Amino acid sequence: MIDAARGLEPADVVFENASVFNPFTCLWDEGSLAIKNGHVLGIGDYSGKMVQDCTGQYIVPGLIDAHVHIESSLLTPTEYARLVALHGTTTVIADPHEIANVAGSTGMAYMLTAHERAAIDILYLLPSCVPATPADVGGAVLEADDLRRFNGDDGILGLGEMMNVPGVLAADPGIAAKLHLSCIRDGHAPGLTGKDLNAYILAGLQSDHECTTFAEAEEKLKKGMYIFIREGSTEQNIEELIPLVTPATVSRCCFATDDCHADLLMDAGHIDRCIRRAVAHGLSPELAIRMATLSPAERFGLSDRGALAPGRRADFCIVDDPETFVVRQVFRNGTEIKASSHVPQVPFPPSVHCSVPSREAISISGNGSARVIGLVPDQIVTTSLRYDCSAEDIPDLDRDILKVVVCNRYRDAPCGIGLAHGFAFREGSIACSISHDAHNIIAVGTSDDAILQAIHQVIRAQGAMVAVLGMETVILPLDCAGLMSTLPYPEVARRLKVLHDVARKMGGIENPFMYLSFLALTVIPSLRVTDRGVFDGESFRDVPLFLD
Amino acid sequence: MIDAARGLEPADVVFENASVFNPFTCLWDEGSLAIKNGHVLGIGDYSGKMVQDCTGQYIVPGLIDAHVHIESSLLTPTEYARLVALHGTTTVIADPHEIANVAGSTGMAYMLTAHERAAIDILYLLPSCVPATPADVGGAVLEADDLRRFNGDDGILGLGEMMNVPGVLAADPGIAAKLHLSCIRDGHAPGLTGKDLNAYILAGLQSDHECTTFAEAEEKLKKGMYIFIREGSTEQNIEELIPLVTPATVSRCCFATDDCHADLLMDAGHIDRCIRRAVAHGLSPELAIRMATLSPAERFGLSDRGALAPGRRADFCIVDDPETFVVRQVFRNGTEIKASSHVPQVPFPPSVHCSVPSREAISISGNGSARVIGLVPDQIVTTSLRYDCSAEDIPDLDRDILKVVVCNRYRDAPCGIGLAHGFAFREGSIACSISHDAHNIIAVGTSDDAILQAIHQVIRAQGAMVAVLGMETVILPLDCAGLMSTLPYPEVARRLKVLHDVARKMGGIENPFMYLSFLALTVIPSLRVTDRGVFDGESFRDVPLFLD
Repeated sequence: MIDAARGLEPADVVFENASVFNPFTCLWDEGSLAIKNGHVLGIGDYSGKMVQDCTGQYIVPGLIDAHVHIESSLLTPTEYARLVALHGTTTVIADPHEIANVAGSTGMAYMLTAHERAAIDILYLLPSCVPATPADVGGAVLEADDLRRFNGDDGILGLGEMMNVPGVLAADPGIAAKLHLSCIRDGHAPGLTGKDLNAYILAGLQSDHECTTFAEAEEKLKKGMYIFIREGSTEQNIEELIPLVTPATVSRCCFATDDCHADLLMDAGHIDRCIRRAVAHGLSPELAIRMATLSPAERFGLSDRGALAPGRRADFCIVDDPETFVVRQVFRNGTEIKASSHVPQVPFPPSVHCSVPSREAISISGNGSARVIGLVPDQIVTTSLRYDCSAEDIPDLDRDILKVVVCNRYRDAPCGIGLAHGFAFREGSIACSISHDAHNIIAVGTSDDAILQAIHQVIRAQGAMVAVLGMETVILPLDCAGLMSTLPYPEVARRLKVLHDVARKMGGIENPFMYLSFLALTVIPSLRVTDRGVFDGESFRDVPLFLD
Repeated sequence: MIDAARGLEPADVVFENASVFNPFTCLWDEGSLAIKNGHVLGIGDYSGKMVQDCTGQYIVPGLIDAHVHIESSLLTPTEYARLVALHGTTTVIADPHEIANVAGSTGMAYMLTAHERAAIDILYLLPSCVPATPADVGGAVLEADDLRRFNGDDGILGLGEMMNVPGVLAADPGIAAKLHLSCIRDGHAPGLTGKDLNAYILAGLQSDHECTTFAEAEEKLKKGMYIFIREGSTEQNIEELIPLVTPATVSRCCFATDDCHADLLMDAGHIDRCIRRAVAHGLSPELAIRMATLSPAERFGLSDRGALAPGRRADFCIVDDPETFVVRQVFRNGTEIKASSHVPQVPFPPSVHCSVPSREAISISGNGSARVIGLVPDQIVTTSLRYDCSAEDIPDLDRDILKVVVCNRYRDAPCGIGLAHGFAFREGSIACSISHDAHNIIAVGTSDDAILQAIHQVIRAQGAMVAVLGMETVILPLDCAGLMSTLPYPEVARRLKVLHDVARKMGGIENPFMYLSFLALTVIPSLRVTDRGVFDGESFRDVPLFLD
């Protein structure tokens, strides 16, 4: 390799006459990019066994997603990799905490095995909050000792998002033990500010991907956190946060998608979409690309990528124009990633072990001032609303108050019932076996019958996304832990579209499954619903549906 | 600590009403800096057991020297620390390769023990080139296995400057073994460019502190190297290189002093001097301070310092004005570093084992075109000059061609003789036991008698810097490995001044000892002289004094 870099031996392939993005200067270098054995030799006057002319084209280091839950795509890791690779992504930093909540170490091991077979580099962080909080036990509990057996494995980079902010602030010994597992520790602290944020950072958390306001992101950046600006299916923060990124701060800012469905990935893209959106909101393409390449590589200590410098991996993509950023070709370790065929998937053991609840189990009673979860467009935070109503009024289609049911999928147990404003359905119901992070079955609908029918279909399919509208029932089976489908990604995207088409006919909001799937996530403010009932994210405790 | 950060318990001390430098934004934060147990709690509305009002003052994170050879200060590590601490430095990244060339592992162990007793944090890199090249054996040879026993020790960060560029380019297995010792590897590649530079970087070298031209530094930065902009006693690169530093590049640029005598450190300062000089040459104080704080912390993976953010070490200094940057107070782990008294020093075993050479041993013969080393003002590189002359003409005071003698200090052996242009002495001689990196005795003078007298005094003192002018002989004893003095730093600085005063009376250049001490360093172009004679740094081989 050294002889080849010196030009004493030919390169494997030389990309001639390209403009190559240089993240160290945020400028473009002109020249020929030489590759050998999957690594960059350098840019210079090289000759190669093969030559590709790149006149008028732009070469960009492989894009990196700083924080993603692959499970949220509804695709298995290898299928996810096959999809995002075509958008220029060559590395993702994934936290497998969805499947870990369902199936613990077994689930993690399933994801880790994909590391070797995937079309891109999937690097993992150990899920730090399984369950998300001690009260939200799903299918598994992972303590520091459970995580330690994965620590040091190939593909494990550090500790994933520490969502248990109250636990950190209370110096919980179990959390402290997890924080000691690695010197790379991702944070998750939506809305945390002032001295409590100081304490959270002091405890060792280094990044945040939950900022929704500029002031929040600015405070966290100033206090030394890496800021992952997130653009997912519902969590869209680029417009608000992108003014944070300047030449002086770009080395501390990355992109993350966190949670993106397969259809959005297929239609709109992945990190390439983040770049386009950032540019659309005024960021220079150069700073946007820096955010997507060297910045996450530096944050995670990946000195082997993030730039097309000598000795680094030849992971890159070719675009015609940095502004429009349409990816033409993608290379990983110097080899072009082509659209490939679906890899047969390893089956996952059954993970849904409950019966369909009775009509009584999902009934409510009471009246007065009710706590109602308010959906916030494009965000996973919710508001805590109050409506004067009576149990018999529900569903209240005029005021858009619908019943939400959470049914424990791991055992037969009482259901949790809440109310939500914002779905705007006029009829029908939806349900799914994805509900962060315990991944019980969650459903919302305009009648108890429709809700029960949807839940029934989820259970029958051993996990699924279901929409019920009159006599019509549409199902996307999620046969892998009730989270992911083993179908090829185009088929998953097609079925998602059908699901969304049906949901749209119910008269409701766009993307209702994504909102629904986050309604049980107690670590995000303000009001939530779990299998125990309504949860107040401000006081961090279960509360009754009616105030009195 | 977490409770204190949350404001539930008082801080130990609060610095109120300060402007605190924020290297994440390169801006100043206004507020109260709270400290407890030597660490930062945060900036905010904190109360403390003690309060210091900092109205109108500026607080800056403790300064970091990215690359230094402490031995070059002529001070022992604890004495060096006592001096630079007063200039705002709280961390240095030191390569103990001077003493390692003299005394191998014994020398390294001597330096490492200082780590615990010093007023600042002295962190070490393992010296990768002892000797600098296979031909330049001094008192020791350190192979990868010898270094490995220090690897992982407290205070060891990685592998120090890899100066053997030809060895790297030839894929020498011994060098490869050293490169495998750590994932932090400092480079040293003066003038290396193009494809050979690519190969050097591909081999794993990540930084360079040897750039002397803007184009060289820009190329290395573009290719992914961290650039340490050096300002030492003779190596002064700030003026030329500082335009490289922009908001987009500052995270990859640091300051280094490499080699600084005690008198310069006392009179002109340390990294504070680098900041002042950078500002004088047009850099904003904010970028200069970023270079001196967070950038080296990031480069060396020191996430516990470089910024005054929650949980980081409370290492900082207070200045009245960022432009003039005069350090008023320095704190390490939250405690003020005060001017302290000299710590009694541990003696070092004898390291000079040769006799004074005979007059014949330093005579030369021949005539014609002679190779003459040309000094370059303020640089350690030399030029390779040619003068038509005869051996009898030397010294040629009119053309400023003086004899340089290198005398092996480890055993009785033939002397190496070279010629130098640039010292400009009219009479007298100087000699010292510091001559990078083998640290043989090196002398230059206007007569063989004066040269032999100077060498005699160096040997008698078991290492020293000596100036001989007529009947006057001035000595700074370097009783610690012939490199460092165990005297207190003010006394070392005083004696250096006397040495320089005498040398000035010889009619020569300023700082002749620093130039002299680098004349034997074969890894720096172009022409050198070792105990074997003249060395051509371009062809990397010994050559005769006369061309024919």
